[in-house]
Amino acid sequence: MSIKTRLIDYRDGDFVFEGMLAWDDAIEGPRPGVLVAHTIRGRSKFEEGKAELLAGMGYTGFAIDVYGKDAIGSEFDDCREMMESLRNQRAVLQRRLLRALQALRDQPEVDASRVSAIGYCFGGLCVLDIARTGEPVAGVVSFHGLFDPPGNTGGNRIQARILALHGWDDPLATPDQAVALARELTAMGADWQLHGYGNVRHAFTNPAADASTGVTVYNESANRRSWAAAQYFLSELFDT
Amino acid sequence: MSIKTRLIDYRDGDFVFEGMLAWDDAIEGPRPGVLVAHTIRGRSKFEEGKAELLAGMGYTGFAIDVYGKDAIGSEFDDCREMMESLRNQRAVLQRRLLRALQALRDQPEVDASRVSAIGYCFGGLCVLDIARTGEPVAGVVSFHGLFDPPGNTGGNRIQARILALHGWDDPLATPDQAVALARELTAMGADWQLHGYGNVRHAFTNPAADASTGVTVYNESANRRSWAAAQYFLSELFDT
Repeated sequence: MSIKTRLIDYRDGDFVFEGMLAWDDAIEGPRPGVLVAHTIRGRSKFEEGKAELLAGMGYTGFAIDVYGKDAIGSEFDDCREMMESLRNQRAVLQRRLLRALQALRDQPEVDASRVSAIGYCFGGLCVLDIARTGEPVAGVVSFHGLFDPPGNTGGNRIQARILALHGWDDPLATPDQAVALARELTAMGADWQLHGYGNVRHAFTNPAADASTGVTVYNESANRRSWAAAQYFLSELFDT
Repeated sequence: MSIKTRLIDYRDGDFVFEGMLAWDDAIEGPRPGVLVAHTIRGRSKFEEGKAELLAGMGYTGFAIDVYGKDAIGSEFDDCREMMESLRNQRAVLQRRLLRALQALRDQPEVDASRVSAIGYCFGGLCVLDIARTGEPVAGVVSFHGLFDPPGNTGGNRIQARILALHGWDDPLATPDQAVALARELTAMGADWQLHGYGNVRHAFTNPAADASTGVTVYNESANRRSWAAAQYFLSELFDT
């Protein structure tokens, strides 16, 4: 195994974004691609680490950016403002996500016909939105994602298979919202799964989560179980 | 591998039950035990096949009976009557289940300190009830189980880990009931997971399900995914 990475710029109009690609150079030929959508904090070592993990599993990972290259590493309050802005302009967010997906498809290490996406927190909302656009991706995985519907995709047919990995006590995505997501995805014809974890809150995959307010709490077993579920899901998607 | 089976009688008072044990005779020493609780139809080739599958995975499987040895192979209407009777007398059902569990623990092929239970449809309710009694089993897996609470276990602490594998469109276990189950299990302190499968109905693991009324419908992907989830769960329980 020989994991390599490189930074890749891509654009939406004049706006420039920067993602990090990771692949195993010991594998020849294009591999299935897995986009990694970031949390509220923007692209960081956390998502880059996931892209590298995916590379070690034989995929080409791509830790994307939806805030803009200049905003990478911004302070929390600025990140929150950017997130809320995109959460309220879902068509803009969706366009940026599809640009990122195209950038992934364009890489020589990627089989453009076999791509998928995973995302964390806000990134979970992002990958659900990719699916909601009707884009032909093989599948998407949301880890403790936000479920609020975009409002602009109701008539679409979802082509991507969906796996939502969800802490049942997540204050940012309540049981009512989980039930509403299920209804939405069924109405859109999706092949979907929702794995609910009892006594688990938001950000359960992140060992650095600040548990002081009880909103974001790392959970070792939910982290392990969700990653195992995602691995199985990807292997089902790509027959790997 | 050398899968063996034998029939085992066990009792609750004067009432005699008959279960089928399955184990791999090529493995030496006691193995983790997995009880298999039956559907409305009573113990049948379906549950016996699961016990044999579990034996092939290195466990000792035990397809139990809660209707009574004389009732095995009864007509559907009689089975329904027996099921409804037990559903309305949960303390009786729970006693029979714990007798079956003890019979499993008593076998030389079983490590009595490492037992678990899986169940299908009515058997899903059965294994959830085993957990609800507070019995120290490692874990239980419900496949398209019924969720109605027993009413006699509210103050108990659940020791078993729980995995509920659930068709979201199951007419016999609605989203409201799934949400209520989550609330119940959380209140009882359980380590629980609920995997919901979109567009999936009751009895999704059974290729022979009669789909004509839309209640029970086999679903190939939910069957495969749920078995994979159960395998991972058992391997987590028993470090296998």
